[in-house]
Amino acid sequence: MSMILRLALIGFGNVGQEFSRLLLSKQEWLSERKELDVQVVAISTKTRGSLLSDKPLDLKRILRIRESGKDLAEYGPGFSDFSALEIIRKSQSDIVAELTTLDIESGQPAIDHIRTAMQAGINVVTANKGPLAYAYDELKTLATRKGVQFRFEGTIMDGTPIFSLVERTLPGCAVTGLTGTLNSTSNLILTRMSEGKTMEEALEEAKKRGITEEDPSMDIDGWDASAKITVLANVLMNAKSNPKNVQREGIRDIKLEEVRRAAESGKKIRLIAKAQQLNGVVKTSVRPELIGTESPFWSVDGTSSALTLQTDLMNEITIIESNPTIAQTAYAIFSDMLLISEGLRAHS
Amino acid sequence: MSMILRLALIGFGNVGQEFSRLLLSKQEWLSERKELDVQVVAISTKTRGSLLSDKPLDLKRILRIRESGKDLAEYGPGFSDFSALEIIRKSQSDIVAELTTLDIESGQPAIDHIRTAMQAGINVVTANKGPLAYAYDELKTLATRKGVQFRFEGTIMDGTPIFSLVERTLPGCAVTGLTGTLNSTSNLILTRMSEGKTMEEALEEAKKRGITEEDPSMDIDGWDASAKITVLANVLMNAKSNPKNVQREGIRDIKLEEVRRAAESGKKIRLIAKAQQLNGVVKTSVRPELIGTESPFWSVDGTSSALTLQTDLMNEITIIESNPTIAQTAYAIFSDMLLISEGLRAHS
Repeated sequence: MSMILRLALIGFGNVGQEFSRLLLSKQEWLSERKELDVQVVAISTKTRGSLLSDKPLDLKRILRIRESGKDLAEYGPGFSDFSALEIIRKSQSDIVAELTTLDIESGQPAIDHIRTAMQAGINVVTANKGPLAYAYDELKTLATRKGVQFRFEGTIMDGTPIFSLVERTLPGCAVTGLTGTLNSTSNLILTRMSEGKTMEEALEEAKKRGITEEDPSMDIDGWDASAKITVLANVLMNAKSNPKNVQREGIRDIKLEEVRRAAESGKKIRLIAKAQQLNGVVKTSVRPELIGTESPFWSVDGTSSALTLQTDLMNEITIIESNPTIAQTAYAIFSDMLLISEGLRAHS
Repeated sequence: MSMILRLALIGFGNVGQEFSRLLLSKQEWLSERKELDVQVVAISTKTRGSLLSDKPLDLKRILRIRESGKDLAEYGPGFSDFSALEIIRKSQSDIVAELTTLDIESGQPAIDHIRTAMQAGINVVTANKGPLAYAYDELKTLATRKGVQFRFEGTIMDGTPIFSLVERTLPGCAVTGLTGTLNSTSNLILTRMSEGKTMEEALEEAKKRGITEEDPSMDIDGWDASAKITVLANVLMNAKSNPKNVQREGIRDIKLEEVRRAAESGKKIRLIAKAQQLNGVVKTSVRPELIGTESPFWSVDGTSSALTLQTDLMNEITIIESNPTIAQTAYAIFSDMLLISEGLRAHS
């Protein structure tokens, strides 16, 4: 029984395009192995126009258009200047993939996109931390009330299973604490500094590789890691927190000399994010810490990330992601889409 | 809608008893959160007799009886000298938990137990490597034909999600290679040797802690690691292999001097198990290797284990289990039981 799955892509930047390429490359597999006919029926961009169709859009052609730098108007049929919210409401999609860029101050406009989709009874997948950091409880409650699925694996460590790991493979096992090195840019900078480079040189590399912004404050002041530990604490430990509650210290003031001294005493400096239960309240923190060779994060260099789950029944489990690229973020959307399709099938 | 789940425990040694304790401690949670009424209706032991009942057995009393070293005859009603196979056939259980000890040469008698359960239409969970290493293909095919579920998370790294990780959280992502440090005893010995202890002293500790047998050949000759990499390769890479195909070298001949020399050059010796695809064939090996600080296994000391999955869409994912005890093996059975109950509900 083949199932049609209609997608609306809200945001069509690097992640949206990479996801589209993955989708095209997996079309046969989806059809043969999963009996899924995935159709993109809507695409919304911030400045390049939008496409809305009741038939499947030609994703290959759209990718060619965007890769050559042209607007979606070039596509022809279905082109409009509808807003993202209008596209979501009109799209008759089964899944909205929220792929816009993050506003760390507010989580917007992604929160509005997700809220609108859920209110219209549409399932949501996102790789956007903002909504989870600022509005997880509201969105989770709304999803339950509307009977839609909400998945967000890509928000932390790209497609590395963290949320689905706890939800789908550790039944009855409670997460009691979290320790992670979650910000690629900080980890890359600290790695390069231990190789003798200055922070400025390392930042230059991070900018060139497209993993940090022109203003790197998000990364080196610990905001990105704060958003991530908040998302983890909210989802896995029911923390009901937000990034502004995180006791936060970034790596901006770390001196080359400190990194050198750490190395001399057999240590590394790493930006460590933590969530801990203290007297019934979940406390979150992000700060540079010294780690030793006994730490599971010792080998986590460059842009890699790692997370240790402290649990009640399984002691500590650590999961490490090595050298991610945008392909892994695209896989997060892809795997979330597949898990949603399983859920849809179970309830059909 | 509360669901009754009837279990037959084949084997009631350390793992069976620890699982029973976990079950008792989770009874309320199972009932309230999972709407599950788990009833143990049969227990088979090798030398202490068996119990078979159509009503739930009093697990608390049975634990007290075994903890005081007495035979199951002490329990009274339901006591018999039925063989394990008879118990399985007569038990009318929904799940057989195969918890006997491993015969690494043949995988028996566990294979017969599992085969008999499946033929009777009973779902199976096991923590026993043997059947997976020697008869995975046959048992998987039989399970499919009989429409029963077959889970075995506890065979590798205790309850750490490996099989369920790939199956339930990495859809469409293929495992292309495996690298692990999977044998606790070897890892503990190598750790102690790097602290200056001799292999004999370290082995003594392992025996005292109950993690190796009187004859430690299984561990220090690499058989345990060979069985484990075979299971992983069979399940995750469709290798159709068995432990005798593994290119195997244990740690028996490692000298203290070699460990010392490794440390002087900033390395550690670890027993590394690998599965790799070469010209369409999966090759498996177990051998002592030098690892450096860049290895994700660098921090994996003592009885901890770790596995790196090489994949097509997610690069490398490493998962580390820290300092497991028998409680984590018990959790493997518990979580497998819960995943089977989900499957039963979906098909009811």
